[in-house]
Amino acid sequence: MNTVTIIKKKRDGKSLTKKEIDFLINSYSQKEIPDYQFSAFLMASYINGMNKKETAALTKSMLYSGKIIDLSDIPGKKIDKHSTGGVGDKTSLILAPIVAAAGINVPMISGRGLGHSGGTLDKLESIPGFKTNLSLKQYKNVIKKCKAVLIGQTKNIAPADKLIYSLRDVTATVESIPLITASIMSKKLAEGIDGLVLDVKTGSGAFMKKLTEAKALAYSLMSTAKSFNKKVISFITDMNQPLGNYIGNWLEVYESVQVLQGKNVKDLLDVTLHLSGAMIYLGGKAQSINEGIEISKEIIKTGKAFDKFSEIVKLQNGNISYIRNLKKYPKTKYKEIIKADKSGYISKLDNYKIGMASLELGAGRKTKEDKIDFSAGIIFYPKIGSKIKKGDVIAELFTNRKDKIDLSKNMISSSIKLSDKKTKSVKLIKLIIK
Amino acid sequence: MNTVTIIKKKRDGKSLTKKEIDFLINSYSQKEIPDYQFSAFLMASYINGMNKKETAALTKSMLYSGKIIDLSDIPGKKIDKHSTGGVGDKTSLILAPIVAAAGINVPMISGRGLGHSGGTLDKLESIPGFKTNLSLKQYKNVIKKCKAVLIGQTKNIAPADKLIYSLRDVTATVESIPLITASIMSKKLAEGIDGLVLDVKTGSGAFMKKLTEAKALAYSLMSTAKSFNKKVISFITDMNQPLGNYIGNWLEVYESVQVLQGKNVKDLLDVTLHLSGAMIYLGGKAQSINEGIEISKEIIKTGKAFDKFSEIVKLQNGNISYIRNLKKYPKTKYKEIIKADKSGYISKLDNYKIGMASLELGAGRKTKEDKIDFSAGIIFYPKIGSKIKKGDVIAELFTNRKDKIDLSKNMISSSIKLSDKKTKSVKLIKLIIK
Repeated sequence: MNTVTIIKKKRDGKSLTKKEIDFLINSYSQKEIPDYQFSAFLMASYINGMNKKETAALTKSMLYSGKIIDLSDIPGKKIDKHSTGGVGDKTSLILAPIVAAAGINVPMISGRGLGHSGGTLDKLESIPGFKTNLSLKQYKNVIKKCKAVLIGQTKNIAPADKLIYSLRDVTATVESIPLITASIMSKKLAEGIDGLVLDVKTGSGAFMKKLTEAKALAYSLMSTAKSFNKKVISFITDMNQPLGNYIGNWLEVYESVQVLQGKNVKDLLDVTLHLSGAMIYLGGKAQSINEGIEISKEIIKTGKAFDKFSEIVKLQNGNISYIRNLKKYPKTKYKEIIKADKSGYISKLDNYKIGMASLELGAGRKTKEDKIDFSAGIIFYPKIGSKIKKGDVIAELFTNRKDKIDLSKNMISSSIKLSDKKTKSVKLIKLIIK
Repeated sequence: MNTVTIIKKKRDGKSLTKKEIDFLINSYSQKEIPDYQFSAFLMASYINGMNKKETAALTKSMLYSGKIIDLSDIPGKKIDKHSTGGVGDKTSLILAPIVAAAGINVPMISGRGLGHSGGTLDKLESIPGFKTNLSLKQYKNVIKKCKAVLIGQTKNIAPADKLIYSLRDVTATVESIPLITASIMSKKLAEGIDGLVLDVKTGSGAFMKKLTEAKALAYSLMSTAKSFNKKVISFITDMNQPLGNYIGNWLEVYESVQVLQGKNVKDLLDVTLHLSGAMIYLGGKAQSINEGIEISKEIIKTGKAFDKFSEIVKLQNGNISYIRNLKKYPKTKYKEIIKADKSGYISKLDNYKIGMASLELGAGRKTKEDKIDFSAGIIFYPKIGSKIKKGDVIAELFTNRKDKIDLSKNMISSSIKLSDKKTKSVKLIKLIIK
């Protein structure tokens, strides 16, 4: 096999064989192909695309660059969820305990926040003591004890993905559906799961701004999952506004705990229950997604969801006292309230800007090396289609960075478009693909 | 300026500004952009192309990565020729002395052979003592004395091209019209010429196999030359069979000297005279290409062409005795004659294979590091459209590599397609673009 010949094939829009893809991924993982050749291959793949077979082959190569975790000694179905991420997307924190409480294993491996978008690991680590870097043995022990675990990617999980992602990041080859598919699926399949629920976000705060792109990604992810004989359901959900009202790491734990304790945060709950309902259905504990939703509601109502969350936190070394007494958490030095300077109907929000404002306050990372301020963030109240009156509180900002307050205030204010006429609210669940 | 942002633009099929192209080329030349980012840019440019403005900007950036040779103290027009190369293409050796004898400066900077295709520098260096690595001062002195010089690329001439070409070679981004254009023109423009004649080859032994590709390259080269206010004429000529009969370095010098001395090698002479005619026309010493052709013929006839060639060889330190007595040159250990095993009309030749057979005998390089055997090569007689009879000598092979004789014989034999019916000869000059 010759690297240049394979690159030429993809450059000329031809399909690569499984052998050719294996050769590229294996050689690159072994550092036998230099970065400059692999980036030419990535760019050719970005522009000319990959078909379903190639995408599945790429996923498989990347998956087998590491190991698949063997969960066969743990009884019961293993179902996970993956979301493409966004602003205020804290569904994992709520659905993992719900689904575990329904009797299904949730062996969740999550990521960190970057740019406007938050990450589950950072949110969990805002709980003092919470450990996300468990050993494989500890990981399995937590699942055995409470059926849910939330950790970060280990070295053995799809190491090729880590290498390739770093190169994509600096060569303008990130937003490619086959490359994204292989990146997501190689990691998720390494969990040794039976089924997967996908939440592909679309809108101004999402990675896929347009519905057509989100659909294409969802179908690509599903086709790949099915080629590995995994059960899969995709949701395409709205990310034109923050999900729930709390943005920032501890703030999102805060809101999640409130929801687990029965608070009705309408949009957040709606998306979370659809996802948990689908997971319970895929796990064989419900006859339909709707039955799964009803089971989820019951689990919250009876207190089992919050109990399960507390159990997970405890097993992963988190200090449970902060969960039991949310007010105990350290406050930021500065709190700033933004009020509406005129009345009107919310017609549009720039959700990307809202996420970036939260980042500026300290809640996010511009580069992978940046440190996060767990207490920082935003409580953001307006929803598209709702009415606000002059003087209404639009948002509360929490930060330890005095010098970023004005910038963030301006970003928040300019992210809101008002209309004199009544506006429509957004459809939250845009599509369910089974 | 941000490298990833510029790569993204080209990836998405947008046009780059002159500033953006300058930034990329300058930063890459200074090693401020890593190879893996530049190769992603090259692949995006390969697939999505570049318009005329971008190609001219790229050429300019690459040209000014080095210096333009100042020939302003040398009186008279400076006209050069560039050919995209092929098998047996020895026109430079014949036309440079003709055009110089017509009173026009020919400050020719040439390349080396690679793969099936030969290079002017290697051919000249087969003349014992001939120096192609002259200093700038020596280069100008030779032009001043005899109006023609033939050297290799120096460090000061478009150094960015050398860097970029090495990367293109290993990232499957060679055959791109804008990238080829910038590579050729940045070097040719560095010669400080007034005009340029281009010989774009097409056919089985050419870089551009198809006529449409050759045309596209010719138009791209001309458009770029014109944007620098250079006079330019392009020829698209046939490369479906060797030009002349001699292939290999000394063998090509041998045939060139014979032509300079008046031998009528029809196809070789036809192409060479068109090119020299156009150069004489661009140099203002003829009213038309045809008049330039007549002048060229006269220069050969009167012996001035051969005298000028001898003068150049002497001034570049070559041992003139080998030119005066061609038989004196060292012979190869082995000479093998291939005869036709049946009769018929030549319908097709695989000229690439013929070039590769010559390479196997020692006349060429597979990689840049390979050494050349100057005496090795092939005399190849058949021309498309001609008739051969069983027992006719098809080719004579010259080599010091006994173990390559069978391989080369097979390559030569299998490169010839015979037909029972009369076949057409090829049109040599396919297009003249002014």
